[in-house]
Amino acid sequence: MSTFLFTDAHDDFRASVRSFSQSRLAPGYMARASSSEFFWDTYRELGRQGLLGLGVSEENGGQGADLITVGIACEEIAGADYNAAFTVFNASVAGGMLEKNLQPGLREKWLPGVLSGELLTGLALTEPESGSDAQAMRMKATRVEGGWLLNGEKTSSSLAAHAHGLVVFAKTSQDGGTRSVTAFFVPLDAPGITRHALNDIGFKPIGRAAVAFEDVFVPDENLMGEVGRGFQMVMGEFDYTRSLLGLMCYGSAQAAIDMTVAYAKQRKAFGQPIGRFQGVSFPLAEHATYLEGVKWLSYHALALRMAGRPHTKEAAMIKWWGPQAAVRAIHDCIVLHGHVAYSEDLPLQQLLRDVSGLEIGDGTPQIQKMIVAREMFGREYLPYAAPKATS
Amino acid sequence: MSTFLFTDAHDDFRASVRSFSQSRLAPGYMARASSSEFFWDTYRELGRQGLLGLGVSEENGGQGADLITVGIACEEIAGADYNAAFTVFNASVAGGMLEKNLQPGLREKWLPGVLSGELLTGLALTEPESGSDAQAMRMKATRVEGGWLLNGEKTSSSLAAHAHGLVVFAKTSQDGGTRSVTAFFVPLDAPGITRHALNDIGFKPIGRAAVAFEDVFVPDENLMGEVGRGFQMVMGEFDYTRSLLGLMCYGSAQAAIDMTVAYAKQRKAFGQPIGRFQGVSFPLAEHATYLEGVKWLSYHALALRMAGRPHTKEAAMIKWWGPQAAVRAIHDCIVLHGHVAYSEDLPLQQLLRDVSGLEIGDGTPQIQKMIVAREMFGREYLPYAAPKATS
Amino acid sequence: MSTFLFTDAHDDFRASVRSFSQSRLAPGYMARASSSEFFWDTYRELGRQGLLGLGVSEENGGQGADLITVGIACEEIAGADYNAAFTVFNASVAGGMLEKNLQPGLREKWLPGVLSGELLTGLALTEPESGSDAQAMRMKATRVEGGWLLNGEKTSSSLAAHAHGLVVFAKTSQDGGTRSVTAFFVPLDAPGITRHALNDIGFKPIGRAAVAFEDVFVPDENLMGEVGRGFQMVMGEFDYTRSLLGLMCYGSAQAAIDMTVAYAKQRKAFGQPIGRFQGVSFPLAEHATYLEGVKWLSYHALALRMAGRPHTKEAAMIKWWGPQAAVRAIHDCIVLHGHVAYSEDLPLQQLLRDVSGLEIGDGTPQIQKMIVAREMFGREYLPYAAPKATS
Amino acid sequence: MSTFLFTDAHDDFRASVRSFSQSRLAPGYMARASSSEFFWDTYRELGRQGLLGLGVSEENGGQGADLITVGIACEEIAGADYNAAFTVFNASVAGGMLEKNLQPGLREKWLPGVLSGELLTGLALTEPESGSDAQAMRMKATRVEGGWLLNGEKTSSSLAAHAHGLVVFAKTSQDGGTRSVTAFFVPLDAPGITRHALNDIGFKPIGRAAVAFEDVFVPDENLMGEVGRGFQMVMGEFDYTRSLLGLMCYGSAQAAIDMTVAYAKQRKAFGQPIGRFQGVSFPLAEHATYLEGVKWLSYHALALRMAGRPHTKEAAMIKWWGPQAAVRAIHDCIVLHGHVAYSEDLPLQQLLRDVSGLEIGDGTPQIQKMIVAREMFGREYLPYAAPKATS
Repeated sequence: MSTFLFTDAHDDFRASVRSFSQSRLAPGYMARASSSEFFWDTYRELGRQGLLGLGVSEENGGQGADLITVGIACEEIAGADYNAAFTVFNASVAGGMLEKNLQPGLREKWLPGVLSGELLTGLALTEPESGSDAQAMRMKATRVEGGWLLNGEKTSSSLAAHAHGLVVFAKTSQDGGTRSVTAFFVPLDAPGITRHALNDIGFKPIGRAAVAFEDVFVPDENLMGEVGRGFQMVMGEFDYTRSLLGLMCYGSAQAAIDMTVAYAKQRKAFGQPIGRFQGVSFPLAEHATYLEGVKWLSYHALALRMAGRPHTKEAAMIKWWGPQAAVRAIHDCIVLHGHVAYSEDLPLQQLLRDVSGLEIGDGTPQIQKMIVAREMFGREYLPYAAPKATS
Repeated sequence: MSTFLFTDAHDDFRASVRSFSQSRLAPGYMARASSSEFFWDTYRELGRQGLLGLGVSEENGGQGADLITVGIACEEIAGADYNAAFTVFNASVAGGMLEKNLQPGLREKWLPGVLSGELLTGLALTEPESGSDAQAMRMKATRVEGGWLLNGEKTSSSLAAHAHGLVVFAKTSQDGGTRSVTAFFVPLDAPGITRHALNDIGFKPIGRAAVAFEDVFVPDENLMGEVGRGFQMVMGEFDYTRSLLGLMCYGSAQAAIDMTVAYAKQRKAFGQPIGRFQGVSFPLAEHATYLEGVKWLSYHALALRMAGRPHTKEAAMIKWWGPQAAVRAIHDCIVLHGHVAYSEDLPLQQLLRDVSGLEIGDGTPQIQKMIVAREMFGREYLPYAAPKATS
Repeated sequence: MSTFLFTDAHDDFRASVRSFSQSRLAPGYMARASSSEFFWDTYRELGRQGLLGLGVSEENGGQGADLITVGIACEEIAGADYNAAFTVFNASVAGGMLEKNLQPGLREKWLPGVLSGELLTGLALTEPESGSDAQAMRMKATRVEGGWLLNGEKTSSSLAAHAHGLVVFAKTSQDGGTRSVTAFFVPLDAPGITRHALNDIGFKPIGRAAVAFEDVFVPDENLMGEVGRGFQMVMGEFDYTRSLLGLMCYGSAQAAIDMTVAYAKQRKAFGQPIGRFQGVSFPLAEHATYLEGVKWLSYHALALRMAGRPHTKEAAMIKWWGPQAAVRAIHDCIVLHGHVAYSEDLPLQQLLRDVSGLEIGDGTPQIQKMIVAREMFGREYLPYAAPKATS
Repeated sequence: MSTFLFTDAHDDFRASVRSFSQSRLAPGYMARASSSEFFWDTYRELGRQGLLGLGVSEENGGQGADLITVGIACEEIAGADYNAAFTVFNASVAGGMLEKNLQPGLREKWLPGVLSGELLTGLALTEPESGSDAQAMRMKATRVEGGWLLNGEKTSSSLAAHAHGLVVFAKTSQDGGTRSVTAFFVPLDAPGITRHALNDIGFKPIGRAAVAFEDVFVPDENLMGEVGRGFQMVMGEFDYTRSLLGLMCYGSAQAAIDMTVAYAKQRKAFGQPIGRFQGVSFPLAEHATYLEGVKWLSYHALALRMAGRPHTKEAAMIKWWGPQAAVRAIHDCIVLHGHVAYSEDLPLQQLLRDVSGLEIGDGTPQIQKMIVAREMFGREYLPYAAPKATS
């Protein structure tokens, strides 16, 4: 009998991903993480393992995995290589989004490459003057013959420095309502596009970038979903991405704790291993506890999504709490290493910076708490965080 | 389709218990909670609802409920009447223990009353000089003809002030090993027993008491399980009780949050409801998040137990974290009520004191973190009680 | 040489107050604290010791003590009897306020009794529908011949159940500006006054009460300060009271820590005193650290006040942080006592409830953080109460 | 009148150091902080300002400043350039140590250069296998004719990559008692010395390094203090350095808060500056409060030291709490910057890494809490943290 909501198939999948991650990904994490080059070889290997197609149906060449399976993949891979886990996460979300929203011709052209690891795509939503406040979006799409002209600037777009295509959100009307935003799929070799990679403290191979669009022409076939429905398209995904992120937080922070337990067993002070001091073991026990809470709340949110039930509140809870719990755990793991810890050579230092990006990306803690509070108080009651404005 | 590990039957059971609890239990909580009398009427009503037999098989007159169902009962009832939930919790655990370990004659004599709410039983483990350190136990059972003589003192025994019988743990050998403790079922009208109720800050109707045993004769038929196996009998239950307690913490603290949300919607300051200030809504969102983590970790631990998998670590995590999360949430809910909060008339003040008992009962936070750490580091590495390991 | 800002006279005063408090006040704390009677004998003894006249000049019969001296008294007495410390605190603040603002005739009539402990006075500011939001005040003073008629209701007024007179704040104009509030000294035997004591969880002898005023006539001579300047009169005092409260928090919580250290030295588990486990000693070290921070910030704020420098920010910092630090410390001290802790018989349980009143009284944590933020951001930037600014 | 323990001279000194720091140091902080080169020009300018001689008497060419003055310098300079503040801190401590303990000939040779910024010296105490546990020290000094031969390895020695001389602690007897350690002043051009700089995450120009000693000859005149008294020499300094570090923590974190307040005033979301959301302003108010506590506790500890009173407990409190409070504040300041924060271009990211070194250097949080607990419980009571072993 399986526990919780895991079937035997889930357990088998976990074992297989863990084995792959620990043997093939863990050893090269540091080398890849400290470079700004994208790890194409590793990425294609993820593709060969089928890990880039988890979110795409089998008929379109994917794995047709359920959401719990995607969660397991994110958790296990993050325990070995946080950045590789991010690309699996991205592929699962973006893959599903492209499958559902790309027009058939474009889908046939792009999807196989996305699944095999030959093509990389991302999302461009944030702008220099607007983060989670979508009403403040300035990027415009103007109707022209046969398509649209895009003008504006996006920033903080993960993978944009290396990607071949982006899902770009732009205003197609200026009334400011929730039906003013439309999504376009934009190949990044289109004329008028300039990118520059951001000088990030971690997450380096992921290539977060700013992308400027100057009269970029996008043909009609690149329209994704309906005109004016772009906002709804991406909002629904946030409930999903935020739930998955919790498992990446768990996986990476639990790996940090495991490393620290191993260290505390052999490092001695005052004649015995430091792990025998409660001043060392208790903080580890506390962090492990919080992370366990993050983990099971995350799987619960995925289960709600699978059942078609609302999970906006749970997703927002995970998004503010998961990264905080992970960053605090990894931080304390570093301090517990003592004087060897203050060095770029300690993998935990790299991991801390990589994971800390999640504290901000996909919505700040403040935005998430606004969403949680709105769900608790009722949307009509907390109108200052009106749906169109905050989510 | 049901989410997580809940079947439709679970969902139906939850709806029914919630309806019963909110309509029948919630209104009288304050009155019952501030009295030191046991709420026999309410207790028998719980019996009639079948809520006292969840942990006993159908063939022995119980409900034969699975553990998830017991968890749901604890959660929902605690959301209405924390102390009533404690008796359901106690009946589920004690019922199962009596069913499994009482000799048949005694079982037939006691079990029906326990299930109907006519008889009350509890556990007597803690002693004045020993809490979680079982090796320090002093209570002795000496072999005499036809039975045993009990001598010693127990304390902090929940329900003992009102109970008809107690499962009493006593040393049957003095070698101090884990096989030196034996369990006996002791009717409290046996000669030589003196009880005095403790003057508790909350949990008042539950009647925590000290019980002194002076040459108390217990016949052989009252032996529970095997001689020398009492410690194992109760330790295995702790993994269960600690998991359930997490759901009582969740249920009661979530009720406090709900009350506070309702208050913050109508109480005004500076011209608007105080719930619109993030200084009010954010702490509520944060506590709700932590409690959600406690909840799903608790159900996960119950699922592990149902699947026969180890869950000692998870149970200990729940035991230190759940009460802390609940007490902190309720505390902040009180402060958010402002100057009306500093009064015995606010039910949250009663609730805070009732729930705070869980911070200590069933093992202090320190003990739980020792257990978690031992599971993380390995038992051979952190030998539970060794002075050298902890100082 | 003396340290910090303490002269030798300060050190001598501290030694003397400590000796008095520990020998005369500490033994009866529990008995007095659990009664709703006011401790008149103790209060008069405080008067004989000169501890009720610290805030009044020598020419008016007081001690003319500097603010550091008042702080020392609050700290030391709170370490023995929190409620007695509150009355010394109240006498110091109210004494100074009466001396400065009462008209000469009334001053001569009342001040000697206040200093000797025969007369008790308090403040009445809070109303059922308004806490720290003075603009929402509804109590009215209407001009009539020879005086004023007071109508309205005050609540949460400390000592009001026992007091002989109250400084009452009422609106003398309805324009809602900061010059609309006036202070009156109101003897509580005036016709039209009804009081009822609140059923508080702690702070019991202090007699927090609601007071209703129905056409209560107050003659002109009872006007305190200028018409329309009541708000300013009390606001300036808040910077003072909040600084002093930090030292009451420190004194009482440090006493709790001392008791717990003593307990942890003798209580044994696993063969040794529990204080030798870092899981016990580290939380005590952490709380002691935070409290030390509260203490020296409090003395710094008093020093700023003595030097005539602004200290609104520091006072608000102390007010939200001091009580939180004290309540958390005392709470953990209780839990560290294990199963003996969950009893009314443990003085720390009484202390927890007494001190917890400070979390709310004199302004909630939310109000204090608003004040701190306003001082950090600039008043023009965060206009105190503007709905638009906070939602 | 001046507040607290500051004289007018202190206030004037603060104004002057602040003006110098903000105009001369702040602008180049980022450039210097991201380089592994030592900032000799800046250092000599600190020398010309007299800031390197604060801890040395006027008769030996220093400023003869009192400890409060040194604290002011550390606080103000850290608010502009954390690493420059570290060198002033180092010079104050090392200068005093060299003045007191160097033999006259060597003192005349080295001290002038140390004061002018031409010569740099540091301390070498930590070893690869021993941090705060001095009994585990392996570095040996063997008596030879005319001096001593040093063998062993030191690590985590600040400034050692650039320094001209180090105070090196080595065992001169193997009995393991507190009198087995002796201090030597070792010029770093002595034969047999190999250094390698550590690849630190921050603190880069400071050049933390490992230093290997292979038969390094040190003449008798380089002996510092008495044989066997090295441990006492350095222990007394720790109470001093830990107090000063609290003010560096305060200065740097307060600067981070000031930057974030400025940012939150202009960055907009949902139509208004984000500083008007309590979700943004309250965390800033909370961090500012904790830091204020750290600050006044630090000045109090310095005042105790000036008065010749014990302050070991206070120093250890500051050492674990100050860096934690600063790191948490700077971390949250970063997150409050939103998506622009995850970049090496944000000075706060550099500052976070620079300050985080203080969490470990000079003793881990665990060691500090052991010391605090020992002071609270009594040294005889907590012998596992015996003076020789833990401090």
